[in-house]
Amino acid sequence: MLPEAQARLVVVLIRARNPSNIGAVARAMHDLGYTSLRIVNEYPVPFAAAKSAVDASSVLAAATEHTSLDEALADCTLVLGTTAVGDRALEHPLYLLPQAAPVVTRALASPEAKVALLFGSEKTGLSNDELSHCHALVTIPMNQPEPGRHLSMNLGQAAAVCLYQLVTEPSPEAQPPLPSEETPATAADLTRIHSLFTEVLDESGYTRRHPANSREHAVRRLILRMRLSSADAPVWTGILRQLLHAIRPTK
Amino acid sequence: MLPEAQARLVVVLIRARNPSNIGAVARAMHDLGYTSLRIVNEYPVPFAAAKSAVDASSVLAAATEHTSLDEALADCTLVLGTTAVGDRALEHPLYLLPQAAPVVTRALASPEAKVALLFGSEKTGLSNDELSHCHALVTIPMNQPEPGRHLSMNLGQAAAVCLYQLVTEPSPEAQPPLPSEETPATAADLTRIHSLFTEVLDESGYTRRHPANSREHAVRRLILRMRLSSADAPVWTGILRQLLHAIRPTK
Repeated sequence: MLPEAQARLVVVLIRARNPSNIGAVARAMHDLGYTSLRIVNEYPVPFAAAKSAVDASSVLAAATEHTSLDEALADCTLVLGTTAVGDRALEHPLYLLPQAAPVVTRALASPEAKVALLFGSEKTGLSNDELSHCHALVTIPMNQPEPGRHLSMNLGQAAAVCLYQLVTEPSPEAQPPLPSEETPATAADLTRIHSLFTEVLDESGYTRRHPANSREHAVRRLILRMRLSSADAPVWTGILRQLLHAIRPTK
Repeated sequence: MLPEAQARLVVVLIRARNPSNIGAVARAMHDLGYTSLRIVNEYPVPFAAAKSAVDASSVLAAATEHTSLDEALADCTLVLGTTAVGDRALEHPLYLLPQAAPVVTRALASPEAKVALLFGSEKTGLSNDELSHCHALVTIPMNQPEPGRHLSMNLGQAAAVCLYQLVTEPSPEAQPPLPSEETPATAADLTRIHSLFTEVLDESGYTRRHPANSREHAVRRLILRMRLSSADAPVWTGILRQLLHAIRPTK
């Protein structure tokens, strides 16, 4: 991966509990040449403690803090969640890490693209709500498959392995992106569309008739599967606004 | 790398101070399918503490403890030391980790081969004495080269990254080893030869005349560079015994 592309790989730590793990992720990023770290925590405590550690790296000093995942992902065009798999029912495409690497470098070949790599809390990984923000999941291949087994590596180790695999992936610069590969919509675009879409479903009576299909995560995944381009995002926003207007003519 | 070859990759932790680092290395080994962990420590304390941790893995339970590096490496045929490079004067071949991986898998293609991967203490890495046991050094490539910069990843992270790179390296089974590639001598063979060779140098007066060339590390490296096969090791042992006998005819 080229350094320019590395700068657009965003590491997002969600509900990390242990300050030393946050510090360890930042140090691996520093060693491997990544710069963009975002911390999502309801409580600022672990991040403050990690920042105050004597061996805090420049990556940690530049890290940003967010109280919502929506905010942390706003400018990202591809969101990948990391998982230890285990027995979670998978509703997402799942890549083994070596397969994920070319997907990431190809996505980053578009100069507007930003790819987010999400790591959940040490204890529980990513929640269902957090997973519903992800286009796909990534897992570190384990060599001794046991059903339902979870990764026992810690957060710092898992992040180091993922970031190492990505940085050593050859850059796809030699092949220009296909003309059909448009710049994808950002997470902020999708959040806006999700919100409008939910209103349309509610107002149209769909939610009442099909509550299971209308749950927040189901709708978010439905929208992710549209693979909207940044050019189409405003078109869809316009369509949804028009639909809302048509359903609620009095407003 | 095939599971059968993985079983002959020996991770050696030397003077690791922090029990949680020993545990973290063992967990990464477990996840990635490695089984052979050896701990070299003058004091048994960190190992005992790591073993008693609630999340201690089966790898740690099976780990062996050694008071000398010679003992820990006795059956190993290729010894690779890990280093953060920095400003250490390098007297060894140095591989970047992606280059080291095919070297390791090719070495392990010989079913008698055992490859040791050495990790030094968290603070100081491998000492000069420990380095003199190594055929070559391995370093994790860093993407932002700054002169003299040391890796800031911790021991658990560095080990996870190295072991991940090795396990994902394709096995060279398709190409059988060349006829000229004989099984290398074990570290125990080399230790015996080193000891005899030192006696020969002493008794012959060479040590007195060329003290710099006769220092323990210099002699050990000289012997490593011979790349002795297991078939030649007893031949050299015989030659050195004969030389000793010739120099000290009265004994």
